[in-house]
Amino acid sequence: MAQQDSSITTRAENYSAWYNDVIAQGDLLDDAPVRGCKVLKPHGFGIWENIQKFFDQRFKDTGHVNAYFPLFIPMSFLSKEAAHVEGFAMECALVTHHRLRTTKDEAGNVAVEPDPASQLEEPLVVRPTSETIIWHMYGRWIDSWRDLPILINQWANVVRWEMRTRPFLRTAEFLWQEGHTAHATEAEAVEETLKMLDIYAEVAETKLAVPVVKGRKSARERFAGAVETYTIEAMMQNGWALQAGTSHFLGQNFAKAFDVTFQTKEETRDYVWATSWGVSTRLVGAVIMTHSDDDGLVLPPEVAPIQVVLLPAGPPKVWGQVMPKIDEIAAGLKAAGIRVKVDDRDNVRSGAKFFEWERKGVPLRLEIGPRDMEQGQAFAKRRTGGDKFGIAFDGIVEAVQAELTTIQCELFERARAQREACTYRVDSRAEFVEKIETQPGFYLIPWGGDDADEEAVRDETRATLRCFPMEQEPCDGLTCPLTGKPAQEWAIFARAY
Amino acid sequence: MAQQDSSITTRAENYSAWYNDVIAQGDLLDDAPVRGCKVLKPHGFGIWENIQKFFDQRFKDTGHVNAYFPLFIPMSFLSKEAAHVEGFAMECALVTHHRLRTTKDEAGNVAVEPDPASQLEEPLVVRPTSETIIWHMYGRWIDSWRDLPILINQWANVVRWEMRTRPFLRTAEFLWQEGHTAHATEAEAVEETLKMLDIYAEVAETKLAVPVVKGRKSARERFAGAVETYTIEAMMQNGWALQAGTSHFLGQNFAKAFDVTFQTKEETRDYVWATSWGVSTRLVGAVIMTHSDDDGLVLPPEVAPIQVVLLPAGPPKVWGQVMPKIDEIAAGLKAAGIRVKVDDRDNVRSGAKFFEWERKGVPLRLEIGPRDMEQGQAFAKRRTGGDKFGIAFDGIVEAVQAELTTIQCELFERARAQREACTYRVDSRAEFVEKIETQPGFYLIPWGGDDADEEAVRDETRATLRCFPMEQEPCDGLTCPLTGKPAQEWAIFARAY
Repeated sequence: MAQQDSSITTRAENYSAWYNDVIAQGDLLDDAPVRGCKVLKPHGFGIWENIQKFFDQRFKDTGHVNAYFPLFIPMSFLSKEAAHVEGFAMECALVTHHRLRTTKDEAGNVAVEPDPASQLEEPLVVRPTSETIIWHMYGRWIDSWRDLPILINQWANVVRWEMRTRPFLRTAEFLWQEGHTAHATEAEAVEETLKMLDIYAEVAETKLAVPVVKGRKSARERFAGAVETYTIEAMMQNGWALQAGTSHFLGQNFAKAFDVTFQTKEETRDYVWATSWGVSTRLVGAVIMTHSDDDGLVLPPEVAPIQVVLLPAGPPKVWGQVMPKIDEIAAGLKAAGIRVKVDDRDNVRSGAKFFEWERKGVPLRLEIGPRDMEQGQAFAKRRTGGDKFGIAFDGIVEAVQAELTTIQCELFERARAQREACTYRVDSRAEFVEKIETQPGFYLIPWGGDDADEEAVRDETRATLRCFPMEQEPCDGLTCPLTGKPAQEWAIFARAY
Repeated sequence: MAQQDSSITTRAENYSAWYNDVIAQGDLLDDAPVRGCKVLKPHGFGIWENIQKFFDQRFKDTGHVNAYFPLFIPMSFLSKEAAHVEGFAMECALVTHHRLRTTKDEAGNVAVEPDPASQLEEPLVVRPTSETIIWHMYGRWIDSWRDLPILINQWANVVRWEMRTRPFLRTAEFLWQEGHTAHATEAEAVEETLKMLDIYAEVAETKLAVPVVKGRKSARERFAGAVETYTIEAMMQNGWALQAGTSHFLGQNFAKAFDVTFQTKEETRDYVWATSWGVSTRLVGAVIMTHSDDDGLVLPPEVAPIQVVLLPAGPPKVWGQVMPKIDEIAAGLKAAGIRVKVDDRDNVRSGAKFFEWERKGVPLRLEIGPRDMEQGQAFAKRRTGGDKFGIAFDGIVEAVQAELTTIQCELFERARAQREACTYRVDSRAEFVEKIETQPGFYLIPWGGDDADEEAVRDETRATLRCFPMEQEPCDGLTCPLTGKPAQEWAIFARAY
């Protein structure tokens, strides 16, 4: 479709507008005709497909298996776990009828309406998350310690009727994976919860090149129905925090709500211990916001749907001399597992092609013209900047692989440096109130407050307690600068998406 | 979970009961608490995951890309294509509210109900298929011939409120892929339609080992909104037909319904040409019904979640002598890409293990005991029968690969032979009416009837016109045995799922 306007607002100008422009220019997503829903276009979905592959492999490496549970949950299930229903009641899509009635007006136009005769006795909730239906099923599957552990993951769509949406970060329907495990002991469930948190952090940093802080959520920020919620928190370029994944220790809450007990090795009966953990298409938003620049999308090679684009240089009439070489190199790169695209469209000028692939965040561009043929090299340009440079045809596959690795590492290091630079400490509440406004970032606070203090801070500053980092310095003897109370534990406060 | 009853009804006794027993004993699926919905358990979902990988790869090899469109479709969209709404109106799940209202009784029990204040202005249909929403989006994306073709596939869940359901074959919610392509010319769209039909047949036969007949549907059996529907029809062991995949040439029907035009190279404007094509989890049912036997599930190695199970023989006390070898062999098989499971549970007797893996359809079982160690070989048993035989440790990876290939081919050949044996011709309607009852199968008919004749045959015999096979013998001069009219084209009639 012809680009109406190809300009991108700068980050400095308006970060939110910049984000939306990057997504539009990168052709990642489009608005759907349904409130709060988006269409993941091929280039945007391709990023998610790569993210999925990495997680799915790690889940299987650690003994998990995939399964599929129904989209619809009987309404009554939600209220079985009190905190859970409190958390999701306000954003549930409800199915109440199962048939349309078609009507024709005199002009013969067909119109439709729900057939009143098809109303359901009990409405169905479109899953906002699957704990309730899965624990109902686990109740049928678990009878003895021999049936444990159950280590199941599901890739699925879920619906949460959000009023304020933002592309990838918050939409009414989104795609995710939700792991739901059942264990015979508390220790084993806690170990699982933390193991998955580690896997989330590992994939985020090594594949998405998004540095994250592993931490524990405060009671106020806990998942509805969890005993403890652990999180990986990333920092976007504007200093705001983004919760990139969560892993929950559910204790025996859902086992009790759905009466799921098992016979222990000691022949007693006990409630089953549970965990659940998930990451979603929100991670695509994290990748975009972490790496992109004022020229548009920047993608780490590991998650880029297209890692290298190959183009013939010069006018189409000379391409005959270079296309055989381009196809040969493309074949070599593909054989090495590199995702390569040859752009030999003769109805688009080179400048426009460069612009398009830059907007789509392709990490590396290779051009070959007649003169390059003579010199036996391709001209390379990194999306992340720097001058063009030559790569000899001889050994080009290894050279390209090395380039991609370098780009991947640079992006991670750049993001980590930016996070360090925007991580602050303050001596007083006044200083915090002023800085959080002018200098967004992670604020490391030796926290001494309670739920009420936490809420007061949020109301005054719009900053929330993101997490208590797993890596803690001692804070004995310190006073909490935000509450004046004795510090209990280091916490990170930030504005968050 | 402790198996209550591990018996399997024989096929001869009751084919439907046999199918349900095979699924239950194979631990493939379970009933969900929502009418018509099922839970795909790990072993059943694992078969679908393998099927998905094969198709996804073939789609990408042929230039298709994946995307994701919303689950919800505005109700009014359905009625834009008249035939389409006729086809789906009777089985649509409708979302009418987006919030729950929680109430507490004096005992403090929480109950919930749809919040009347959250009723939607326009109800949303949970997608039964996505042509309407996708063509709405294509209208935004297509402007010129440069935007074509669009070759998009989507892996998704869809909902069709079926009244009579059967595991895998017909459920209210099911998983599938739906390809939706847009083209500048009729010829290109027709070519795409047939190309995907060929891919469906190729994967069904080479990976699922399910022989299929490629054919064209009659007008009565056409997809709602299609100009032509093509199908791959498989035959189950009871002689019934199973539609295993369909590819539709949609002409310009949806482009007209959603007013999607493009500027041609000749600078004129024309409506876009369309195709759509899909296969679903129903294929898992086809695999089960085609290959399984009276001892339970039989899986072709290509789609088996576990291809080889390795077990130590003899009492646990002697396992120390064999486990290192078993782990070494397992590692070797895994390295060769073979899906292997080591069953070293010491709380389950060998006999029970053999029984369990047989029920789960694992193609090949390998046992190693102390005596086998001395003889330097493992004892192998095929799920498809025959005596145990030795496989020398030396070169065992290649030997196992060869075994799996042989089993895959044998299953396909066996299924093809069974289909040939159950493909009949008849000389008269009387003969057909009698035989279809006593001898279910594919009946090759030089068909001369019209829609009314087709319906009459179905009403009298419960057999339907499955397809007009792509491979046609001449039928000029022949008279249709079912209608007495001059034959126009060879057709297959059968009882079908």
